Amino acid sequence: MDDVPTDEREPGARLNLREVAERAGVAMSSVSRVLSNHPDVSPRMRRHVLAIVEELGYEPNLLAQSLRRGSTLSVGFVIRDISSPLFSEIALGAETELRNHGYSMMLTNSEGLPALDAAHIRLFRQRRVDGLLLSLADEAYEDTIEELRRVSVPVVLIDRELAEPSGLSAVLSDHASGVRAAAQHLIQLGHRRIGLAAGPLNLRPGRELKSALEDACRRAGVEALVDDGPFTEEHGVAAATHLLDSKTPPTALIAGSNQILPGVLHVIRARGIAVPDELSLVTFDDIRMLEFVEPPIAVVSREPLQLGREAAALLLRQLAGEEPDTILIPTDFQPRASCAPPPHRA
Amino acid sequence: MDDVPTDEREPGARLNLREVAERAGVAMSSVSRVLSNHPDVSPRMRRHVLAIVEELGYEPNLLAQSLRRGSTLSVGFVIRDISSPLFSEIALGAETELRNHGYSMMLTNSEGLPALDAAHIRLFRQRRVDGLLLSLADEAYEDTIEELRRVSVPVVLIDRELAEPSGLSAVLSDHASGVRAAAQHLIQLGHRRIGLAAGPLNLRPGRELKSALEDACRRAGVEALVDDGPFTEEHGVAAATHLLDSKTPPTALIAGSNQILPGVLHVIRARGIAVPDELSLVTFDDIRMLEFVEPPIAVVSREPLQLGREAAALLLRQLAGEEPDTILIPTDFQPRASCAPPPHRA
Repeated sequence: MDDVPTDEREPGARLNLREVAERAGVAMSSVSRVLSNHPDVSPRMRRHVLAIVEELGYEPNLLAQSLRRGSTLSVGFVIRDISSPLFSEIALGAETELRNHGYSMMLTNSEGLPALDAAHIRLFRQRRVDGLLLSLADEAYEDTIEELRRVSVPVVLIDRELAEPSGLSAVLSDHASGVRAAAQHLIQLGHRRIGLAAGPLNLRPGRELKSALEDACRRAGVEALVDDGPFTEEHGVAAATHLLDSKTPPTALIAGSNQILPGVLHVIRARGIAVPDELSLVTFDDIRMLEFVEPPIAVVSREPLQLGREAAALLLRQLAGEEPDTILIPTDFQPRASCAPPPHRA
Repeated sequence: MDDVPTDEREPGARLNLREVAERAGVAMSSVSRVLSNHPDVSPRMRRHVLAIVEELGYEPNLLAQSLRRGSTLSVGFVIRDISSPLFSEIALGAETELRNHGYSMMLTNSEGLPALDAAHIRLFRQRRVDGLLLSLADEAYEDTIEELRRVSVPVVLIDRELAEPSGLSAVLSDHASGVRAAAQHLIQLGHRRIGLAAGPLNLRPGRELKSALEDACRRAGVEALVDDGPFTEEHGVAAATHLLDSKTPPTALIAGSNQILPGVLHVIRARGIAVPDELSLVTFDDIRMLEFVEPPIAVVSREPLQLGREAAALLLRQLAGEEPDTILIPTDFQPRASCAPPPHRA
């Protein structure tokens, strides 16, 4: 298939394989094999043909080549919002890994709208991408499930779990280890009521944080107070307000993501609450500038660069013929000055 | 061209135009016109054909279609680092605008290496993208200039200026207006020596900040001290150290980007310098969490979402046949508590 010299039919290609072959004094199939990195080419032939290609300024049409190969060397990446510090680091890790293996990454933002997830998966399928990296806005949205059933290329979910279609690869953050370490730290400091401004429960991170905190608290006979909602600053405000206004408010708060944290901080500021003297604080995602907030905030890091790199590597392994797999990426808890013993044992 | 029903030759397409046409009882050319949104189709024909397409689950091959059209409906975006808050907002603005017009965005990170800029432009050319958005790592790198000379599709530079090739479109941040407002604010407070930890002078933002500050200071008879270097935290440390250690140190510092700021803050912290009592501080880029640094830091915002949106819109206008253009996006200065009169008039 690769030997068929169809480049002359493509618009924009000034030279074709035939001219390169004539100038090099070799068969067109030899030029084609060199350009497609076929293993069955001698180093001498490779050097000779590439020198002629360079001399003539021949431009292979990757798109035409890839259609003949049945591969586009492209991967679609569906996320909520590239401007989120977590997603932009995941994207950097994924793009670097894909590029190092000759793949280009197409990026779309769902803006948190499940309908856009479904539309983007459909678009990428029609664009014949070789694989998909998905950080979906909703794990149970019917149109998304329907679109995924039609996908025949490898898919890697990024910290998402689907009831169906089953058997998709996934790279998952091990939230539980980080939350457990944070909860144990707070419990050792003497806290008996720990609040969590959690993400939405229709996404894995929200569910995992909630169940990990509840589990750690139950084992220690400590109360967990959870308020779930969207990954927004507004939810941070609402959750912190609700938790702090409860009859027996928590003496420590965990912000469930970098998007939720600013809302929590606004409430703490507006009420003039002293951290850590009156309230201990833990957040997720060790983003830029966090180190310059006073006092420094204890943090659970999800290692987003690694998440992105591992997701891409898993996709590449599947493209090379391996079976789908699930990889767990550890999270890391960093205690900082925002945690201290509660003001009085409740 | 669009009427040629070549879809049956593509791998992965289970159904072809002929089958859709037969089932619909219309000519293949009618099906093709409906699917390519040809204006010369009656609403009744459109509804009828789309119903059959839906019923049969026919999947048009966008890639094969676009090759026949000579367009891939894709745009390449070359930036240094998607994990930078400035670039990730630019990317969000650009991707949203492109997607709303039917284009997909391919993203590559140059990691600040000019050689990767050149390689990515070449890759995108070979992928036959319809246009390029470029935030280059170096405006004068020979291989990049060479690659750009070969590009035949529209290019929009994002806050970059090239000596050659000339005539490329550009969306430029009007740094001067923001720097001028910041300098005037500091001068009115009584500062007579203003330091700038600037970006590199081989990129427009570094040059613009330097000349705008020097210009504003010259007019007011005030001294400007500039230390230029890469957009890194390390340069922030080196520049702040160098400026504060000079014989007549500045009483106000401007950090030339969100990447430089953390280094400046580290020096201020390590030396126990009180902001704003001992040193006034201004930074660039109103990124997340900046509002929670104490005291709040005065900021020049470059409006990155708008930069990205306008860059994409400019590219789309060129794709529609308009001439290259240059657009200036205003910057906005926000005075905050990090600026106060200098400790003593020098």
